[in-house]
Amino acid sequence: MMEYNQGTGEFENWIVSETGFSSDYLGKCEAIMSLGNGYMGMRSATEEPYIKEQRNWFVNGTFNKAQVNEVTELPNLADITRIDIRVDGERFSLEYGKTEEYVRQLNLKTAELSRSFEWISPKGKKLRFHFKRFVSLSNLHLTASKIEVESLSHQVAVSLDSGINAQMTNSGSQHFMEGERRVFDKQLIQLVQTTNESQVDVVINTTHDVKVNGEEVEVDPDMDMERRKVWLSYEFVLQPNDRLEVEKVTTVHTSRDWDAMEAEYDLQQLRESSLGNLKLHALQGYDSLFEAHQQVWKQQVWDVYDIQIDSNNSYDQLALRFALYHLTIMTPAHDVRMGIGAKGLSGEGYKGHSFWDTEVFILPFFIFSNPAVAKSLLTYRYLGLAGARAKARENGYSGAMYPWEMAWPTDGEVTPIWGDIDIVTGEQSRIWSGAIEQHISADIAFAVYQYTEVTKDEGFLDKYGYEMVFDTAKFWASRLEWNEQRGLFEITDVIGPDEYKEHVNNNAFTNYMAYFNLKLAMRYYEKLAKHKPELLGKLDVPMGLSTAYQEWQEKAEKLFLPEPGEKDGVIPQDDTYLQLEEIDLTKYKNQERVRTIYRDYNSGQINLLQVTKQADALILLYLLEQTFLRDDPRISADVKKASFHYYEPKTLHDSSLSLVTHAILANDIGEYSLAYSLFQKSAEIDLGPQMDTSDEGIHAASIGGIWKAAVFGFAGIRLIDGRLRIDPKLPKQWHRMKFHIKWQGHSLAIVITPTMLSVKADSEKSFEFEAGATIHKCKGSIEVPLS
Amino acid sequence: MMEYNQGTGEFENWIVSETGFSSDYLGKCEAIMSLGNGYMGMRSATEEPYIKEQRNWFVNGTFNKAQVNEVTELPNLADITRIDIRVDGERFSLEYGKTEEYVRQLNLKTAELSRSFEWISPKGKKLRFHFKRFVSLSNLHLTASKIEVESLSHQVAVSLDSGINAQMTNSGSQHFMEGERRVFDKQLIQLVQTTNESQVDVVINTTHDVKVNGEEVEVDPDMDMERRKVWLSYEFVLQPNDRLEVEKVTTVHTSRDWDAMEAEYDLQQLRESSLGNLKLHALQGYDSLFEAHQQVWKQQVWDVYDIQIDSNNSYDQLALRFALYHLTIMTPAHDVRMGIGAKGLSGEGYKGHSFWDTEVFILPFFIFSNPAVAKSLLTYRYLGLAGARAKARENGYSGAMYPWEMAWPTDGEVTPIWGDIDIVTGEQSRIWSGAIEQHISADIAFAVYQYTEVTKDEGFLDKYGYEMVFDTAKFWASRLEWNEQRGLFEITDVIGPDEYKEHVNNNAFTNYMAYFNLKLAMRYYEKLAKHKPELLGKLDVPMGLSTAYQEWQEKAEKLFLPEPGEKDGVIPQDDTYLQLEEIDLTKYKNQERVRTIYRDYNSGQINLLQVTKQADALILLYLLEQTFLRDDPRISADVKKASFHYYEPKTLHDSSLSLVTHAILANDIGEYSLAYSLFQKSAEIDLGPQMDTSDEGIHAASIGGIWKAAVFGFAGIRLIDGRLRIDPKLPKQWHRMKFHIKWQGHSLAIVITPTMLSVKADSEKSFEFEAGATIHKCKGSIEVPLS
Repeated sequence: MMEYNQGTGEFENWIVSETGFSSDYLGKCEAIMSLGNGYMGMRSATEEPYIKEQRNWFVNGTFNKAQVNEVTELPNLADITRIDIRVDGERFSLEYGKTEEYVRQLNLKTAELSRSFEWISPKGKKLRFHFKRFVSLSNLHLTASKIEVESLSHQVAVSLDSGINAQMTNSGSQHFMEGERRVFDKQLIQLVQTTNESQVDVVINTTHDVKVNGEEVEVDPDMDMERRKVWLSYEFVLQPNDRLEVEKVTTVHTSRDWDAMEAEYDLQQLRESSLGNLKLHALQGYDSLFEAHQQVWKQQVWDVYDIQIDSNNSYDQLALRFALYHLTIMTPAHDVRMGIGAKGLSGEGYKGHSFWDTEVFILPFFIFSNPAVAKSLLTYRYLGLAGARAKARENGYSGAMYPWEMAWPTDGEVTPIWGDIDIVTGEQSRIWSGAIEQHISADIAFAVYQYTEVTKDEGFLDKYGYEMVFDTAKFWASRLEWNEQRGLFEITDVIGPDEYKEHVNNNAFTNYMAYFNLKLAMRYYEKLAKHKPELLGKLDVPMGLSTAYQEWQEKAEKLFLPEPGEKDGVIPQDDTYLQLEEIDLTKYKNQERVRTIYRDYNSGQINLLQVTKQADALILLYLLEQTFLRDDPRISADVKKASFHYYEPKTLHDSSLSLVTHAILANDIGEYSLAYSLFQKSAEIDLGPQMDTSDEGIHAASIGGIWKAAVFGFAGIRLIDGRLRIDPKLPKQWHRMKFHIKWQGHSLAIVITPTMLSVKADSEKSFEFEAGATIHKCKGSIEVPLS
Repeated sequence: MMEYNQGTGEFENWIVSETGFSSDYLGKCEAIMSLGNGYMGMRSATEEPYIKEQRNWFVNGTFNKAQVNEVTELPNLADITRIDIRVDGERFSLEYGKTEEYVRQLNLKTAELSRSFEWISPKGKKLRFHFKRFVSLSNLHLTASKIEVESLSHQVAVSLDSGINAQMTNSGSQHFMEGERRVFDKQLIQLVQTTNESQVDVVINTTHDVKVNGEEVEVDPDMDMERRKVWLSYEFVLQPNDRLEVEKVTTVHTSRDWDAMEAEYDLQQLRESSLGNLKLHALQGYDSLFEAHQQVWKQQVWDVYDIQIDSNNSYDQLALRFALYHLTIMTPAHDVRMGIGAKGLSGEGYKGHSFWDTEVFILPFFIFSNPAVAKSLLTYRYLGLAGARAKARENGYSGAMYPWEMAWPTDGEVTPIWGDIDIVTGEQSRIWSGAIEQHISADIAFAVYQYTEVTKDEGFLDKYGYEMVFDTAKFWASRLEWNEQRGLFEITDVIGPDEYKEHVNNNAFTNYMAYFNLKLAMRYYEKLAKHKPELLGKLDVPMGLSTAYQEWQEKAEKLFLPEPGEKDGVIPQDDTYLQLEEIDLTKYKNQERVRTIYRDYNSGQINLLQVTKQADALILLYLLEQTFLRDDPRISADVKKASFHYYEPKTLHDSSLSLVTHAILANDIGEYSLAYSLFQKSAEIDLGPQMDTSDEGIHAASIGGIWKAAVFGFAGIRLIDGRLRIDPKLPKQWHRMKFHIKWQGHSLAIVITPTMLSVKADSEKSFEFEAGATIHKCKGSIEVPLS
């Protein structure tokens, strides 16, 4: 059972708690309390094992394809978290005996996991357990844990088996060669393994330190090896009130770290230096390592990102911090070669692949909060250009056709081909996204636009951005199909954001975004021609830009853009959606689980109904209004309103990406209480009380969406055609909202109350922003009364 | 807790029982109660999962090498035994709630596993569970199980998730490609997978049948797929006294079955025919399938193999049947391309590889009980000749050097290179057996000799046996090294049966067995020259036999054969053993576990001590006396006695092969009560009360040894230089022993009491046997009084 208000004092609204343990619902806390630092992510499985556990530890970027017919994925590393505890020779488990005062907590402020309880063994002996664990943000390669066991009643024998277990797989798929296991000096354990396809070397070192009643004790553990396992067995006899403390410090390094450096790679050196790193740090002990870690969390995370809310509902504050916590731990800020997985690093779901989730749902947070990280994430997409070009070529197109799912930049398209069961045929369903969900290329172009408008980072554009936008535009130009009857170009046989409609023609989102992509490329071309002809010349040679530019001009104007209905003002999602059968969706709208419609229909059948998985036409309206197309009458406020009211009842929100867009749009169109309720629902997708929603990992896009709904939605911050807009509409439950954003080199402290907007810049350089219909010039600080 | 006397009536001394469940000791019953039919073997893991379970299902001969640096092994198939049961939504487990009347039983007579108990859920609802399972001996591809759940107190919701789970690995090593999963008609589930290296296709089909209170019910299960998994979810609500019955029938077929047939292989046909096979049989239902299965057990196993003992100790009777049961289920009687694994098919230990265990410890049972199976097992070795010749070539020798571990016949040597932890270095220990444990080639030649002497199967000799004996002799001739100082040939740098001595020179067992191998080849050569010159001519061309024969003659006579000590009559185990340091072995002799000496010494250190893992010089004496070398004074009865008394105290029996040889020899030298106690110990290795000895699988050789100790030991049956000897010395606890043996085409019914030996043949053709010092001529039947 989850609780949200156990934090007190300095930790008020910082603590996520589980106050009752059930081995039937392990996935929830494993995922939402997962630890990480962007370099690695570790699910918070308990030390003692349970049947339904999902014990995962990933290092970002170590992608590997376990077998020929599988797609590449982040391999589950050898495990160091499981510790087999025996009490008087019997396996310790919370499934039997009696457990009291159980609480497991994630402290978002210090990024530390803890768990404590009293346990009375089946034989009647009472012990107190206390577990702590963190993944360091001050040393990206390090994780540490601490176990305390206190005997409260009798003399008791406690034994621990702890080491490194490389029997882990990704749900049965093995990524690693057996590797070398070694114990040094009966103390340091090292495992060296290599992935079986990508040939990434992974070195894991671990060591233990033991105290009884605060004093270091000499231990002589047994050493053991089994296939893919090596461990030490410690045995202790505790007298009543004896307190055993065991610290375990672990480091992980990979050859991919080394690749990022200048030096020539050498496995032997990697082994030695990683072991050295462990020796150096293990000596400091858990508490000192933890102190360094939480300092970094304070300085680099909370001092920069924190959003403070005075709300009637304290859950809102916690949910925002929960989002900021996960946005931090999921993001490989340290390495431009890595993206963000759709489940972060918190589960095997989506295999660590990056989707449009990053650009549309997560990147905005970094653009407005930490542009250096945003740049790194976009650079990852730049490095993906080669793969995107190859995909275009293979499909008979020009330019860059980005993979729907992207892993290591050079891997190209990595979307699996087969998915869940088709209840009609009994076979696996075909996944078409890798082939025909094509809007991703335009989404990335949009992200380049948004990033550079907000940051004015011309250097990025020069070095990476132009090329990305030009090449995606070239793709679209080659992708368009002439429809003689319409006398227009169209785009047939795609999947839009609403994946419940496969093989549709002229998906509004796809067509408009392609249009935007082409227009953006033209703008950039013209800008370069005028201001940086040399750079244009340099790009022109390999890319054939002048010819391309002609083609963009001709084709963009003749691209079919679905018009809002004359009467109802609803943008048709695609050529046929509005004519499809409508059915009663009550059963699926009121579901506790997503995708229950698949219990009754297969995808072919769903394709023929007016039912939408997630925001499709609606997200289009939200994205494009941020650009130079904002004044296009086809995407006006009225269209937004009409489309919202049409699609919302037909949308099952079976993607976690959906609710937040609806929340923002509801706020935009004045449906404030609906907006707040949609925000709350989206903030419950992972953090909420439902215990089985996060089993395969947290929903990274939805977590980015929590920030978006608060900042873009309620605080009304938006990029609007190159200008900052701040047009707050706080929910009536919120009395005050305080946060920082970055805007074109400024760091702005923003405070919003129901009646006042205060903006304070960190320099005296002036800048403009729009609030309501007014343009404000701000120099230093400004206060704007709100009606 | 194990019990051995729960069988009553027709099942008296047929039932192995576990009467208390502990999730800490699962391996015991999983292994010793494992099911099989030689085609497949299935560990008896419980339906509901537990942390420490080892859920294994192997089909013989499907060897695969998961990764480049691993050796080939039997891959763990997708699992069909696990069934997730929920009671009122909570996972059912015996680890909580309250369990009463628990009993798990293996019925050796019917080869059926059953388990029943009453369980009171944590919420206080009482249910009765009854599980049954068998692996069919009448249809080698079929296994079936049945679950009965009865609500004893309340209305209760019971749900079952059951299907096929291909997330299984061999301790983390994945052998299978992801494969195709499919549900037909919401009922039949099919998985088609291929091993990732050997490209063996495996097709598994399963289906369920549901009854409530004896009536078929319509069910509409949910269908689900996860990665490598497909299953159906059944939900039921039981009223008090409602009885739910769910039958699950499963078939498995592989492309290796097909290879054995004449038809051209076609996967599609395999899929369809295997599904057809399931449909056909599933309709019959559990009870009818089981009836057919137990009929075959009666006719083909118990009517032929059973040994009946009147003993003060009923455990002895059960232990013999336990041995006969496992000898049946472990042996691939259906396919000459397959051997017997050192753990049978009951665990991952030793990877399904065949060792000398087969020829020396298991084959004698089949030679004397079912010569057709013995022939099949020897044919497997014949098919291994190519690999043995390759191994000889690679090592610079001639002829055939058999692999220490053999898998698929063409795989050649498959012994792993690295083993358990070396406690001194902290690294994995090097396994030398694959390179230098060479006696296996002579052991196989001995088996050919023993088989043909007992069966007079000249056809086998002509077709396979001569070639095997000649080629192994050629190997030995090329292997011998001239020692100038001794003026003799010797064999240096080997491991004998005692693997605690690595890199020794002139291991007595190896040298004598090589000598026997050479002498046997010479005999066979001479016999062929005299009686079958044509066959000799045919073999001579490719094998160069006439030259080889010359070499055998010269070298055999100059081979150094360690002489018994002049004073003490002890055969020195090798050149240095008798000079090594002696230490107090009490600690290790009285151990409950084997190999505890490795906790204190690494293999390099053990190498320097007078400590023996298992019978070495002693087994030599036992083997050679069965041959034409029986009268060699170097292996006289006095030498046997002296050597036994010298080595027994130094032997830790850390191999399960050891006790039974000692038991037979103790009986031979008149140490009757020691013999009986060693027999009892050997009969407890798997079946006994110790709960952790069989975790990696049963000990196939030791199980063959139980039969040997009873029949070769107490009943005194022995091949003695081509003659049958029956020289019984029943333990004083045994009052009567009754069994059958095959002898040169006769089936002999033998009854032994302390005072009388009765032999009855199935034909009137007369034959001779030796009892005591007398030769008896038997025609029909004979009774011989015993003193």
